[in-house]
Amino acid sequence: MKCKICKKEAEIKILAPYCKECFLNQYKKKVERVIKKFSLIEKGEKILVCVSGGKDSLSLADVLKKLNYDISILHIDVHIGKCRNIKTKEIVEKFAKERNIPFFVTTFEEFFDIPNLEKFFKVAKRPICATCGLLKRQLFNRFARENKFEKIATAHCADDIAKYFFKIILSPSNEAIDWFSKLNPYTPSTHPKLLPRIRPLIECLEIENLAYTKFSKIEVAYCAMCSFFMRNDKITNVLRVIDEKIPDFKFKLIKTLEKIKIESKKEVKKEEIKECKICGEPTNQEICAICKIKKKMNTS
Amino acid sequence: MKCKICKKEAEIKILAPYCKECFLNQYKKKVERVIKKFSLIEKGEKILVCVSGGKDSLSLADVLKKLNYDISILHIDVHIGKCRNIKTKEIVEKFAKERNIPFFVTTFEEFFDIPNLEKFFKVAKRPICATCGLLKRQLFNRFARENKFEKIATAHCADDIAKYFFKIILSPSNEAIDWFSKLNPYTPSTHPKLLPRIRPLIECLEIENLAYTKFSKIEVAYCAMCSFFMRNDKITNVLRVIDEKIPDFKFKLIKTLEKIKIESKKEVKKEEIKECKICGEPTNQEICAICKIKKKMNTS
Repeated sequence: MKCKICKKEAEIKILAPYCKECFLNQYKKKVERVIKKFSLIEKGEKILVCVSGGKDSLSLADVLKKLNYDISILHIDVHIGKCRNIKTKEIVEKFAKERNIPFFVTTFEEFFDIPNLEKFFKVAKRPICATCGLLKRQLFNRFARENKFEKIATAHCADDIAKYFFKIILSPSNEAIDWFSKLNPYTPSTHPKLLPRIRPLIECLEIENLAYTKFSKIEVAYCAMCSFFMRNDKITNVLRVIDEKIPDFKFKLIKTLEKIKIESKKEVKKEEIKECKICGEPTNQEICAICKIKKKMNTS
Repeated sequence: MKCKICKKEAEIKILAPYCKECFLNQYKKKVERVIKKFSLIEKGEKILVCVSGGKDSLSLADVLKKLNYDISILHIDVHIGKCRNIKTKEIVEKFAKERNIPFFVTTFEEFFDIPNLEKFFKVAKRPICATCGLLKRQLFNRFARENKFEKIATAHCADDIAKYFFKIILSPSNEAIDWFSKLNPYTPSTHPKLLPRIRPLIECLEIENLAYTKFSKIEVAYCAMCSFFMRNDKITNVLRVIDEKIPDFKFKLIKTLEKIKIESKKEVKKEEIKECKICGEPTNQEICAICKIKKKMNTS
């Protein structure tokens, strides 16, 4: 099999065959094209890249740096139950230093002043990943705002979007329909305290991110809890089978989603975003979910 | 396994277990609910039901008759290549007579005055099913209009809609996006010569229609060409695998589609519907596709 571009021996075939150099090159070009097409980053903007240490976020940080964007890395050193890999922080820190990218690290305990995180997760009474997501979202936004970043970049890729898409399709509630707007590469700010979010990897497949880290010799932190290889939910399994039959399914889905807008037929009342009466962070309630859990911790 | 409703021994389990009587009853109620919810049929309206003789269209005609709507049946006696089953016409005619439903039958040759149908299909230079669809659409509409029907009912079910949905998702062109509007139970008229179309079976699964005909002892005409059991295209196969993992996928997809509107982000120029300069039927061209093929037949 020959590389689609230079005709040398191909080393990878995902949607088309490429040699290593041409694969890395087309990956970078694809991300650049997405950034330009959706005006994700304006000249001179300071971008905070959220890096967990997995293949997706490391690929994102690496390619944005190579494209000469002004990025910094924020890593959350997560310590909950099995979600703990002592090497992860080291890996991300080393990655940032080698590339001369400003590196920030914090923990949920420190950032939110939560003395007993295990108790916080227990009192929250949600699935562990939901509570983690809740904390991460507020942390990313507050950190970026307080440190004068202009936008937050996350490594959501075509696989994530396809998965969300199926989740929404399968929950025919009006609330879920509102989530369709989150399947875009750009989420604008809806409150002065909320930063815009960008998803430059939206046209990249998870397997391409994996190949990008392999070919770029980027050391990746593996986590047993939400690893690529460990997932076994219904929708992931369905997407795997679709992949076998229609290898470019997720890519085509993303291209279609870029072109359409999906709205509820019924007028959905836009949720008003207020500021939490305790911490002042944006929320659609009087008191934000995090402060509510903290209050419950103190009384239980 | 017990029937979900009466607790007698269940005879079928698609999304839930039912005995024969309760299955037939809930099927009828489901169709009635869809008709009311989307105001598909107003009191006293004359409905033309297009019946091929397969499980879907026979279920539709049977249930609409049982619900006391004023329906007539139109059957096209198709004679193209392998799409010919001499028993089909007999089966549909007998079905209509037994239920006292007015029955109309025609052929493409007779209705469109095409002396050599094989040549017409050859000259059309499209897949056979595309040419057949083209003829059927115009025939249904003109027949219904000329015979003073108010609406045309077709037996498109959840499986058809799911298949169209995937087809559109996989063709990220602006033209395809326009097709999203066709995934609804009701297509309003967009020209005085075009009748509204209704799809009362939109919430029924193909397998439910099959069960409905079996339990109701309705004789079904089988056609080797586009039979349920013979299909082997990519999207049908993908939907089969999804069914195994998420049995209510298609049903939930339909419920979501009912609640959303999907539009192109770009302003798509609405196609103006004119009248064909030769036959006067609605078309987006100067001359309709059927008259164009007829002209080509005469010159080739």
